[in-house]
Amino acid sequence: MTQYTEALAGRITPEMLAVAETEFLEPEFIRQEIAAGHLIIPANKIHRQKKLIPAGIGSALRTKINANLGNSALSSNAGCEVAKVQYAVKYGADTVMDLSTGTEIDSLRRQIIDEVSVPVGTVPLYQVCEQLDDIADMTPQHFLNAVEHQAKQGVDYMTIHAGLLQKHLPLIDRRLAGIVSRGGSLTAKWMAVHKKENPFYEHFDELCEIMAEYDVCWSIGDGLRPGCLHDASDAAQFGELETMGELTLRAWQHGCQVMIEGPGHVPLDQIEMNIRRQIGVCHGAPFYVLGPVVCDIAPGYDHITSAIGATLAAFYGAAMLCYVTPKEHLGLPDLEDVRQGVIAYKIAAHAADVARKRPHARDRDDELSKARFAFDWETQFRLSLDPERAREYYEESRRQTADGCKSGGPHSSGAVNCNENYCTMCGPKFCAMKTTQELKKLRDGQTS
Amino acid sequence: MTQYTEALAGRITPEMLAVAETEFLEPEFIRQEIAAGHLIIPANKIHRQKKLIPAGIGSALRTKINANLGNSALSSNAGCEVAKVQYAVKYGADTVMDLSTGTEIDSLRRQIIDEVSVPVGTVPLYQVCEQLDDIADMTPQHFLNAVEHQAKQGVDYMTIHAGLLQKHLPLIDRRLAGIVSRGGSLTAKWMAVHKKENPFYEHFDELCEIMAEYDVCWSIGDGLRPGCLHDASDAAQFGELETMGELTLRAWQHGCQVMIEGPGHVPLDQIEMNIRRQIGVCHGAPFYVLGPVVCDIAPGYDHITSAIGATLAAFYGAAMLCYVTPKEHLGLPDLEDVRQGVIAYKIAAHAADVARKRPHARDRDDELSKARFAFDWETQFRLSLDPERAREYYEESRRQTADGCKSGGPHSSGAVNCNENYCTMCGPKFCAMKTTQELKKLRDGQTS
Repeated sequence: MTQYTEALAGRITPEMLAVAETEFLEPEFIRQEIAAGHLIIPANKIHRQKKLIPAGIGSALRTKINANLGNSALSSNAGCEVAKVQYAVKYGADTVMDLSTGTEIDSLRRQIIDEVSVPVGTVPLYQVCEQLDDIADMTPQHFLNAVEHQAKQGVDYMTIHAGLLQKHLPLIDRRLAGIVSRGGSLTAKWMAVHKKENPFYEHFDELCEIMAEYDVCWSIGDGLRPGCLHDASDAAQFGELETMGELTLRAWQHGCQVMIEGPGHVPLDQIEMNIRRQIGVCHGAPFYVLGPVVCDIAPGYDHITSAIGATLAAFYGAAMLCYVTPKEHLGLPDLEDVRQGVIAYKIAAHAADVARKRPHARDRDDELSKARFAFDWETQFRLSLDPERAREYYEESRRQTADGCKSGGPHSSGAVNCNENYCTMCGPKFCAMKTTQELKKLRDGQTS
Repeated sequence: MTQYTEALAGRITPEMLAVAETEFLEPEFIRQEIAAGHLIIPANKIHRQKKLIPAGIGSALRTKINANLGNSALSSNAGCEVAKVQYAVKYGADTVMDLSTGTEIDSLRRQIIDEVSVPVGTVPLYQVCEQLDDIADMTPQHFLNAVEHQAKQGVDYMTIHAGLLQKHLPLIDRRLAGIVSRGGSLTAKWMAVHKKENPFYEHFDELCEIMAEYDVCWSIGDGLRPGCLHDASDAAQFGELETMGELTLRAWQHGCQVMIEGPGHVPLDQIEMNIRRQIGVCHGAPFYVLGPVVCDIAPGYDHITSAIGATLAAFYGAAMLCYVTPKEHLGLPDLEDVRQGVIAYKIAAHAADVARKRPHARDRDDELSKARFAFDWETQFRLSLDPERAREYYEESRRQTADGCKSGGPHSSGAVNCNENYCTMCGPKFCAMKTTQELKKLRDGQTS
């Protein structure tokens, strides 16, 4: 039984109850959303027996964010990657994907599954490819074995690029940036070498059987997502999408939970159309979007270009946002990049949740704003998405000021008085909030 | 004569010609937009005789960005601030505002006007307040003198909070965060102490005469902009907006150019309404918006929370975006904060320009994407908004990899080979763009 088949049978599982509670929603509503295919709870039966805390992904819920991690053949050992995973979860990643393509993939995945409380996703093709000299050497059985192996390890969702077909390949000739999905390009190469149809499409039913057995969620990969603004919303992207819609229904017939991956690079004015079309074509399955990046000219800052697109995507109905770090297009992220990427995406998800009026979404903003107005710096830091960074910037600014030196206290040793009713942005004489409080006293005095 | 009165008289000035050329638009169209009040060219007659390169601000043009700089009583000397101004212009600020509230305000302003080629804005009230023990000691004549003094120095636009009236003050009692505009709060305090109407409203015609004489543009300040999500779109904000609309017409009658300042903190779902309402109430005058910040819980990252709002604001018609740095709400920005703020806002402005299909807006994205697909790293860096940062991240990643050590070359001394056809994000075996090129060869071989 999967969460989906349980929901269809009218049963509310412990995982549904847990999701209902954290989302401030009724369990029966959660069950209905799962039964309709609009919501998934990625919770592999194996991982459920470990530290996993169930989380739901669906547009009726709080927007979730995923952090991609994992080594490549060129960099990072397993220890580094586990530290990054823990860092991502600390700053608020709701799921993590281990995209390792280097060595020790198997033991690294096991460590991650054992240690984190959030759902873990993978792209099984990476491990298969890493084991071979050339992707062309892969056999379908080899791939099925890898999926079963990872399912047994406890992976909660898997991205497989099953929607990219032979008929779509000529459509990429009109593109500037070809195929930018690693899994998509490897799949296309296999198809071209063997002159055969996509093996994951051909063996889709067998894949579904394995995934249903462990309740691994499908994340149907968008192998033809656009990799630059020019290629957005083209025939290749939307051709593959049609197949993804067809596969969604087939996976549901097998009792699987399904979500759908999306772009990529999309100009701002095309985001609403993209999200509505994706959700429509895929029968309301939760939509999991990578960014999208809204301009191509800011390498080094693509956590920002993509957080802009991601906020809009979530606002229009995307259920989960895959983070992008400042190193995107340039290299693998280090710890600080992971932090920047996660926070940028917490902002995107939260801004969308406030705008979509998810239950209690704005409470924390209002509490922080009250604390800000009251010069309650400690509460302000505590309620921040990144308390350490907020405090660090505040204290650093205070220490640099002449006032910081004059007002006494052991500033040079690092301690800063956080009880003063202004900050160095304006100083005491120009602090608007301080002036507002004086104004209030004046006006109260005049009316009393 | 001002650009506005020249345009009304049917004359095309050298400044209009310059703007037409940089925007790929017809001079007559620029003239019409100025005559309609939809476009301004902030170019004080004094500053025009120096290094100023005329730039237009209007929603028919490329979106502009402003960088706020200036010292406070607590920090930063003039030398630091001039360096920040130069840094902001280097990274692409289209205008700068000197918001100094500390010492040496006058000489600092003179240096900035002499040295930068972009329009310079100020908030004259800050200098007046700095010269007094208490803002309550200000006389209207004192303020008029300060405006004339700054106009003579060559300031191109001035923010004056003339729209905030006695009748609006009770409306702030319902707020969580009161008044967050420094100029607005000082003006309100003066009004409360003296129990008089806003002096800038009362002396608006005299202010217009000074500004028209030097062709200083009005930036009618929004003293009651919301300072948190809770306060957005409230009666205080929109009450003041009505007065700003009235003042727009009065300023035009004096021949002045006018733009309107806007919020602030606004939830995502209210941005479109805010922009359309502001532009409507203010008769199509260019709208100059601060962010807006779309959530309150990310101090330390408000360049991101606000770039999200700013992108949408520009998409819906804002003409200029005032940047926000990571230090917003916590302290004054240092050089790196200025860089982060400017780049975040270049991204916002550019993403909106692409989406609004401004002439040639996407050319640079397409060129960069072609270079990316061709592994032409040097061109990719050159076309980036921040070439140094992109190169730094790329080289740092390469240096950290085992491959970087193995593939020879003096990596340890800092040099990195930028001619290789993959990056460390995926490594050579998993590079989708490399695989796409192999795929193309395979398919070409099969069809030939």
